[in-house]
Amino acid sequence: MPHKQMSMERARPTTTTIRPFMLAIAGDSAAGKTTLAGGLVEALGADRSTSICTDDYHRYDRAERKEKPFTALHPDCNYISIMEQHLQLIATGQPILKPVYNHEAGTLDRPQLVEPMEFVIVEGLLPLHTKLMRSCFDVTVYLDPPEDIRTGWKLSRDTGARGYTKEQVLAELERREPESEEFIRAQRAAADIVVQFAPIPGRDDPPDTPLSATVLLRPTVPHPPMVRIVEDTNAIHLKMMRDDDERPVDALHVHGYAPEPESGKIEQRLWEHIGLDQEMPTSLGMLGPDKRSAPLAVTQLILLSHLLSAQS
Amino acid sequence: MPHKQMSMERARPTTTTIRPFMLAIAGDSAAGKTTLAGGLVEALGADRSTSICTDDYHRYDRAERKEKPFTALHPDCNYISIMEQHLQLIATGQPILKPVYNHEAGTLDRPQLVEPMEFVIVEGLLPLHTKLMRSCFDVTVYLDPPEDIRTGWKLSRDTGARGYTKEQVLAELERREPESEEFIRAQRAAADIVVQFAPIPGRDDPPDTPLSATVLLRPTVPHPPMVRIVEDTNAIHLKMMRDDDERPVDALHVHGYAPEPESGKIEQRLWEHIGLDQEMPTSLGMLGPDKRSAPLAVTQLILLSHLLSAQS
Repeated sequence: MPHKQMSMERARPTTTTIRPFMLAIAGDSAAGKTTLAGGLVEALGADRSTSICTDDYHRYDRAERKEKPFTALHPDCNYISIMEQHLQLIATGQPILKPVYNHEAGTLDRPQLVEPMEFVIVEGLLPLHTKLMRSCFDVTVYLDPPEDIRTGWKLSRDTGARGYTKEQVLAELERREPESEEFIRAQRAAADIVVQFAPIPGRDDPPDTPLSATVLLRPTVPHPPMVRIVEDTNAIHLKMMRDDDERPVDALHVHGYAPEPESGKIEQRLWEHIGLDQEMPTSLGMLGPDKRSAPLAVTQLILLSHLLSAQS
Repeated sequence: MPHKQMSMERARPTTTTIRPFMLAIAGDSAAGKTTLAGGLVEALGADRSTSICTDDYHRYDRAERKEKPFTALHPDCNYISIMEQHLQLIATGQPILKPVYNHEAGTLDRPQLVEPMEFVIVEGLLPLHTKLMRSCFDVTVYLDPPEDIRTGWKLSRDTGARGYTKEQVLAELERREPESEEFIRAQRAAADIVVQFAPIPGRDDPPDTPLSATVLLRPTVPHPPMVRIVEDTNAIHLKMMRDDDERPVDALHVHGYAPEPESGKIEQRLWEHIGLDQEMPTSLGMLGPDKRSAPLAVTQLILLSHLLSAQS
């Protein structure tokens, strides 16, 4: 290993600097950021892509935060100017020594070297908080689950892997709510793509039905040709609408209850649009070892299309 | 604290960026870097100056290093390109999130925010290793004690605070010797000032006599007007000579055995040359709570003159 690193380091000045494609995935705690990002990194390959979590830039560990008048969501609880600096460095092809927040222990651990790769996926609570940070990205995504869905996800994660009680998680969510509103949900307006996974109201689908997705495609960046891609399908439809702020936006609805051949057709069309001469990656849409969501796969394919068409 | 940091952070874009004066102090383990730097930071004040140790950029902790074919002195054992990056950031007035190597435990701990100050003193094993690093400094110093003196210092420190046995320290010095030669002592040639603390051969001074200093002042930067400053004194003399590489250099000899009034006169002249309307800082020359070395004080005054005359 050291000799490999040495030779890479010495070779760097003479090789072309990589300018990575930078994708941001912002959203509140347990909004599904890691699931969305994980499938993309797996599809792209760990040799071409890396993901960075901005929660690693916490200024205080869990014990220190107990003494503070704010939660981990607050910009003052994070090294915002270092986050800006590191995003700029990575975006211009330079390595960073990234801090590491250990979510299990709640401690700040030894930092990690992150070398820029072809694709850098930056996910976390605050990646779109400042203009300088936003300017580092090629495409930005905000994950916007309904609060009751997110509460369920957070309960199932934090009472499991992270060892909290249900009451602790609910109390923490309540404590965080003003900062969620002020800092996290405020980022929704800055995203090129807003994704909401939710059941369709009024339907009585069986309990295993995957959540449907509403994907808002803002005309701030070019998107795949969705009008053509959704032609002659029932599983998915596209509707022009006005966003909260009255700006026109394309709303793509991907139904979780659609039969596999229907959603599969859309996935294939998106994959063909990307135009790689290989099979569609099997990691797309996976929610677990044997649980697949077509709405998640379609969302990931739209993002892959952004990532990969920048290459051509 | 958080509120103070918050207001500093928000104010930054509208205030003038500080471009710190950057001083490097390079030298082998136990060469006296911290003693020299410590007196300077104390004299300048912690509100205007900060010191950074480049040994914090170790890539491996003590346990991991045991498995490696090199010692902590080797560039491959350090994040050299991150060191370069951080020195450039600090030199251009930007904060860094500096890694932290815990010398006592031998572990890599949570990183620390370092804000640029008026004066930044960078000390360590390898601050002059690459051209990019050297280009970040206004003045560079190499500490060059004779190896027997350094061995004594290292034994007294590492068998004390760091808890090694004498045999372990001597074995480690031997293991490090080829890398000392190749990487550490190689930096001597890049320094503007080379300082050697050593007894004067052939003299039979009492055991408490401070070591004398030989300060090589290379004509790579302007120095205080030493010809005038050493006039009519016996404690100190200046001699033009050829350095190892045949370049002309001024060699300043400061005698450890000189009586206080003699060395005091030189210190005062250097202090007047610096031209601050205040008393000379009492931290200069201190080797411990009640041990003072006039040669150390003179060396620190020469460095202070570099630091402070850049201000006018």
